[in-house]
Amino acid sequence: MSEPRSVGAVRPQTMHFDTPLACRSGAVLDAYDLMYETYGRLNAAGSNAVLVCHALNASHHVAGFYAAEPDKVGWWDNMIGPGKPLDTDRFFVIGVNNLGGCFGSTGPASTDPKTGRPYGSSFPVVTVEDWVETQARLADRLGIERMAAVMGGSLGAMQALQWAIGYPARIANAIVVAAAPKLSAQNIAFNQVARQAITTDPDFHGGDYYAYNVVPRSGLRLARMIGHITYLSDDAMMEKFGRSLRSGAINFHFDVDFEVESYLRHQGDKFSEYFDANTYLLITRALDYFDPAAACGGDLARALSPAQARFLVASFTSDWRFAPARSREIVKALLDNRADVCYAEIDAPHGHDAFLLDDARYHALVRAYFENIAKECGDLAPQAATGATA
Amino acid sequence: MSEPRSVGAVRPQTMHFDTPLACRSGAVLDAYDLMYETYGRLNAAGSNAVLVCHALNASHHVAGFYAAEPDKVGWWDNMIGPGKPLDTDRFFVIGVNNLGGCFGSTGPASTDPKTGRPYGSSFPVVTVEDWVETQARLADRLGIERMAAVMGGSLGAMQALQWAIGYPARIANAIVVAAAPKLSAQNIAFNQVARQAITTDPDFHGGDYYAYNVVPRSGLRLARMIGHITYLSDDAMMEKFGRSLRSGAINFHFDVDFEVESYLRHQGDKFSEYFDANTYLLITRALDYFDPAAACGGDLARALSPAQARFLVASFTSDWRFAPARSREIVKALLDNRADVCYAEIDAPHGHDAFLLDDARYHALVRAYFENIAKECGDLAPQAATGATA
Repeated sequence: MSEPRSVGAVRPQTMHFDTPLACRSGAVLDAYDLMYETYGRLNAAGSNAVLVCHALNASHHVAGFYAAEPDKVGWWDNMIGPGKPLDTDRFFVIGVNNLGGCFGSTGPASTDPKTGRPYGSSFPVVTVEDWVETQARLADRLGIERMAAVMGGSLGAMQALQWAIGYPARIANAIVVAAAPKLSAQNIAFNQVARQAITTDPDFHGGDYYAYNVVPRSGLRLARMIGHITYLSDDAMMEKFGRSLRSGAINFHFDVDFEVESYLRHQGDKFSEYFDANTYLLITRALDYFDPAAACGGDLARALSPAQARFLVASFTSDWRFAPARSREIVKALLDNRADVCYAEIDAPHGHDAFLLDDARYHALVRAYFENIAKECGDLAPQAATGATA
Repeated sequence: MSEPRSVGAVRPQTMHFDTPLACRSGAVLDAYDLMYETYGRLNAAGSNAVLVCHALNASHHVAGFYAAEPDKVGWWDNMIGPGKPLDTDRFFVIGVNNLGGCFGSTGPASTDPKTGRPYGSSFPVVTVEDWVETQARLADRLGIERMAAVMGGSLGAMQALQWAIGYPARIANAIVVAAAPKLSAQNIAFNQVARQAITTDPDFHGGDYYAYNVVPRSGLRLARMIGHITYLSDDAMMEKFGRSLRSGAINFHFDVDFEVESYLRHQGDKFSEYFDANTYLLITRALDYFDPAAACGGDLARALSPAQARFLVASFTSDWRFAPARSREIVKALLDNRADVCYAEIDAPHGHDAFLLDDARYHALVRAYFENIAKECGDLAPQAATGATA
């Protein structure tokens, strides 16, 4: 095994699709672009492809960095690269910015060719099912009939589940980290407050703020702050910030006194500078709506019954957003179906964010799982034409 | 024991104070009013008074109803009344709207006699310690040297703790329900987001919105929605709302689809119609700042060492805002001091809100505790002059 290292400088690519997409909402998108990145090389059999699905605020930039922006490291760079748990010396890894996103794929800020103006409020409310369909189309275009694995954390894990349900013959392994089979009422409630913060911001203009040269920054900041609290555990926040005071004393005002206030505001500020508010609405709604069991009278086992993939399901003890009990619902349903599932509940203090962190036990688990996948992939020699690789 | 019933029609009273109050912040309030209610009768020895302290959004209206508004029932009416756990046939119960409030006590919306305009942003940042001082002054004026008990839930419980620390000779029993000895980083974080929602509302005008004939309603709604999520347990929300849809189907929009969204919005709307945004800022900040151990190098036992009261501490298993572990910190510190403490961890599904609900085990506990207090109070015959009673 080589020493783990970065995949190095990478470059995003765009794929244009002009086969209309009939969304679950009934809306039809005539054409769209997907922004994606790939690392490693597809083998001759096309059997070593791994799709990495992103969660709320991430993108196609999963690993490596950009030559012009060496600090812009991919969001799952600790997991993916040569010698890393998902080893790009063996696997052909694909990251894609989901439809409706704000990092290059067609989304609310994109120009609607029919009007010449940004889609804004007219962009379809996309779902996990819609995303997976577009990802399958991207796989077609990259010449991948069957994914060695689809992998994701949180909302990304929901996409991996949906691949297993919607394209059972096209996915060999689903790696489902820090997931839930559907949001709880509390999860939806937090999303509702975040969306209300955005839509009641006077700069929102019903979603068509682009025309006004403003963005609903206050609302987006609040939305991010609310979300961020739910990504961390109470203990992790206490460990990191405690009740530390910025100036060493209480100042009897409503501005920042505690370090945790400063941190949260900073997170909100940063986020509001790069993320599109409409995309935030879309993505939180996709989370709310995902519920594969709903069409089966609430029977998750029945919803998962088409799946042929093997599953790795992992959760983190301190994750209160998608607690281990939620992952166990998935595992139980898979076991009811006699599916092949490996489950790990990882003792980690960092809350939901743990899925993004470099935890030794977690990474060892994923590494071991990919070792087994590699054995199924056969010869890892790349195909002759490498046009599809980065 | 009589059948539990309502204390009936009650009327609030105002007490004016013109001895300046030196707040912990350094600010001085020259004069102020406190709005309060009393139920039952003070006995001749003045030994049966119970002060009930309120939490975030409540008031002096603790029990009974108003003759002109029979639906306006006190916020702890299930606990307090003839034959109820806190029996007004035996105890003289006092509810007071805290200084800085918006239900009749002097607060940010009150007219500053120096300017003839509402205090607004110039109102002092009041603390739990300041509130307890004003409550002690009210006790003086009502002729009560020593409280039979000071009782509260959540922020109200912090006031009971502060009574035990600040006025050890004037409180016989502290009833501390659903409490924490100080907020965690996560607690502060939620408060920070709520305050940001208010202060970034364009209608906030730096806290001086009264002059503009507006209120920062959007911000206050968001603040309440965020708070409300933390009052309920995930399980209780799932039990109450699940993923029920208002129209029976998903509508692919950002308006209300799920019942829980409708409920939260309704809570936010209602709250924003009656609560003052500046009061919300003040009260959440009082929560943030309360930390009696801070002055003792973080040693809670040392902070509580002046206390002479007996303590009843109660927590609820599903309360994740102030989890049982937080109450146990208080109990541990009291035991370290060899204080007289009774602790109950009540198995209740309702989260933090459980302290307001009519739970049989919880109410039986409080009833039993007050039985013992009654024995200490001696003759319960009222004093001859009853001017101080309702």
